[in-house]
Amino acid sequence: MSPQLTEFFEFLRIPSVSTDSKYRDDVRSCADWLINKFTSMGLTPEMHETPGHPVVIARSETKADRPTVLIYGHYDVQPVDPVNEWETDPFEPTLKGNKIYCRGATDNKGQHFAHMLGVEETLKEHGDLPVNVVFLLEGEEEIGSPNLAPFLEQHRESLACDICAVSDTGMIGPGIPTLTYGLRGIACLDFKIHGPSLDLHSGVYGGAVPNPATIVSRIISSLHDEKEIIQIPAFYDSVTPLETWERDMWASLPDGNATTLKETGAAGLLGEAGYTALEQRWGRPTAEVNGVGGGYQGEGSKTVIPREAMAKLSFRLVPEQEPEEILELASTHLKKHCPDSCRIEIELGHHGPAYVMDPHSSYGQAAQRALERAFSDKPRLIREGGSIPIIQSVKDIIGVDTLLLGLALPDCQIHAPNENFTVTNFEAGIRLNRALLEELRN
Amino acid sequence: MSPQLTEFFEFLRIPSVSTDSKYRDDVRSCADWLINKFTSMGLTPEMHETPGHPVVIARSETKADRPTVLIYGHYDVQPVDPVNEWETDPFEPTLKGNKIYCRGATDNKGQHFAHMLGVEETLKEHGDLPVNVVFLLEGEEEIGSPNLAPFLEQHRESLACDICAVSDTGMIGPGIPTLTYGLRGIACLDFKIHGPSLDLHSGVYGGAVPNPATIVSRIISSLHDEKEIIQIPAFYDSVTPLETWERDMWASLPDGNATTLKETGAAGLLGEAGYTALEQRWGRPTAEVNGVGGGYQGEGSKTVIPREAMAKLSFRLVPEQEPEEILELASTHLKKHCPDSCRIEIELGHHGPAYVMDPHSSYGQAAQRALERAFSDKPRLIREGGSIPIIQSVKDIIGVDTLLLGLALPDCQIHAPNENFTVTNFEAGIRLNRALLEELRN
Repeated sequence: MSPQLTEFFEFLRIPSVSTDSKYRDDVRSCADWLINKFTSMGLTPEMHETPGHPVVIARSETKADRPTVLIYGHYDVQPVDPVNEWETDPFEPTLKGNKIYCRGATDNKGQHFAHMLGVEETLKEHGDLPVNVVFLLEGEEEIGSPNLAPFLEQHRESLACDICAVSDTGMIGPGIPTLTYGLRGIACLDFKIHGPSLDLHSGVYGGAVPNPATIVSRIISSLHDEKEIIQIPAFYDSVTPLETWERDMWASLPDGNATTLKETGAAGLLGEAGYTALEQRWGRPTAEVNGVGGGYQGEGSKTVIPREAMAKLSFRLVPEQEPEEILELASTHLKKHCPDSCRIEIELGHHGPAYVMDPHSSYGQAAQRALERAFSDKPRLIREGGSIPIIQSVKDIIGVDTLLLGLALPDCQIHAPNENFTVTNFEAGIRLNRALLEELRN
Repeated sequence: MSPQLTEFFEFLRIPSVSTDSKYRDDVRSCADWLINKFTSMGLTPEMHETPGHPVVIARSETKADRPTVLIYGHYDVQPVDPVNEWETDPFEPTLKGNKIYCRGATDNKGQHFAHMLGVEETLKEHGDLPVNVVFLLEGEEEIGSPNLAPFLEQHRESLACDICAVSDTGMIGPGIPTLTYGLRGIACLDFKIHGPSLDLHSGVYGGAVPNPATIVSRIISSLHDEKEIIQIPAFYDSVTPLETWERDMWASLPDGNATTLKETGAAGLLGEAGYTALEQRWGRPTAEVNGVGGGYQGEGSKTVIPREAMAKLSFRLVPEQEPEEILELASTHLKKHCPDSCRIEIELGHHGPAYVMDPHSSYGQAAQRALERAFSDKPRLIREGGSIPIIQSVKDIIGVDTLLLGLALPDCQIHAPNENFTVTNFEAGIRLNRALLEELRN
């Protein structure tokens, strides 16, 4: 085994589960391990305490005449439950064929450690880097990065940079270099329908009074028409339409409809008419029910008219939808569809805008060239459907775009048992970092 | 306090909670108490064991030349939870003004004990009854009478009679004699919508795959139109329309719309267009959601597309709707509204037809005369919205109609804390029994 892999395994063995206080010391050991590694690489590390787990910063030599690249990653990992579904010890990295099995292998230790090794190789070979590099590795990504935005605010100046690079997204498939240039935003709300003042006997009163479970269902049903087009007035008004090059690019990818069916196990697709599954997932906004509940949900029957029922909605947003405006439009729509015989209660939840950067900008083109050099194939330009709030924080606070250079493969099992990272991608990641820093040189 | 009230209190003190095995011996003591009471009244009691709690039968002298009246009641009571909401000890009968507070006071000890005392008075005064009487008192009504239908089957011959009388329904208001001549039937089903094979990230996949929570809501929403008319094809085909005399009679009762609002605490009514609240509750069929659930229902947010969602429906039925046919029509409708991208699973539940008897038949007229004599007012003829499966069993197995001569007042709090029965109704019940047996004489 190569010394680089041996070192990676050492890093992987530290069970840095951020959500479980049982692993608190391990998370700290992991930060210590990084500090030592950065020191031995020739970077200047800093350990920053937060109300939670520490942030590790490491800086290369800084020269004024070259750009500064911020490389973000997170050294904390997801819990390993259900542990009995793992085929190997979740914290004993195991090489089987081309795959390294371990919690954190892909998400995110493997991906940012490849960048670290790329920097180490360049420094060893050239004694210097083509750009200034600042690593920013947090220990709380898997618990929602509660202390990261405040940290960025506080260190705005010392983290000043020209571009950010993150490997924490997916690749279309093995060997296919992928630049993610957009993420959807999100806006959440819960609503509750109040009807009778108590649960009623559905025999005694049924037929004459509003049933909140029915009303909630009708309101949910009012969100889309039969073409799955969202019916909230003005919902699409500020949506940036997909550009032709994007639709062409996505159409050239491995069949997204088939992939979506296979990955979800659904019997069929169901989405906005006129768009492919990838367009629906990456480039179009949604109105989804994340939860609905009311009345009796146990075994057998209980013939009540429930006094209340609720639903949890989340909207995925695309540029240039404003999350707060969407929540306002949605609230107005929900209220309009609540009959006078009931009362609606709406609670607004977390929200953040969509993120998009221009993959044809000079930074975007540099990223594409680096990807092509690392993988010897033309990079595919995609967006992703989820939200990465950190990217927006970097944009808002540090004021720079982020290059999302994912190394996660579709079957890498992040957040699940048997998480794995291929040796191929580990090595490609090292090449990617070297190429990227060169391409970002002035 | 009168000896009759003293004796009633003795009966009430026995905590015959059928659902809780802790009270098993008390339920038995209650049956024993009834056996003794029937003996002392001059009737011939029988204790019948069942797989659950015993059935108590008591017969008067039987003469071939007069009709036989079966009087049904139940000596078991509901649990007393939440016990701290009682203002008095739930099993220590307490007289406050005109009201006797105790669990079982109205439901059903007070109501059937009044009938027993009526028989006792008649026997004391005349040494004989105008008709043959058979009391049938079960100890499992509050747990769904699991052993009653088999018992009726088994004792079909010895329970042969001409008419059944039951006081276990409601009065329109204090002093207003009420004959209930119809009850709605019921048909229940659960359905589940299966979508993706696992809970999905609503960011990654949202917009392209079916969301079972949304689909369940749409299916529920398809049950009614904007006039609250049920949209299941053929649902109303066998409904017997309300007759003019019924609508007139119900329109003459204290304002049903206002009463329904007051009793339910709803901000407004919502029911089938063209009918009053009482007509909707007593004479029209319904499609109600008793429960709906899917996805995340806890605090905060979890942005999933749930793999499945479910709903529990119950249909209240009116003459001549066939429960099994309604379940079939409903299932067809639900299946039709499930998109191809999902799979629907339907589980049929319990069901029973509506019950109706002619209040203008000779038995119905006798009941009306008896009510008028007991309360000195013209009886109101109503139906009720709930179902009493026992009544249908008596009809199906014994082959006779039941006179539902309710003594329960709107504020008697059955199944709730502070259950009570008025002394007025206790005494009226005794008079009612005496008048009824006389009116049912050949």
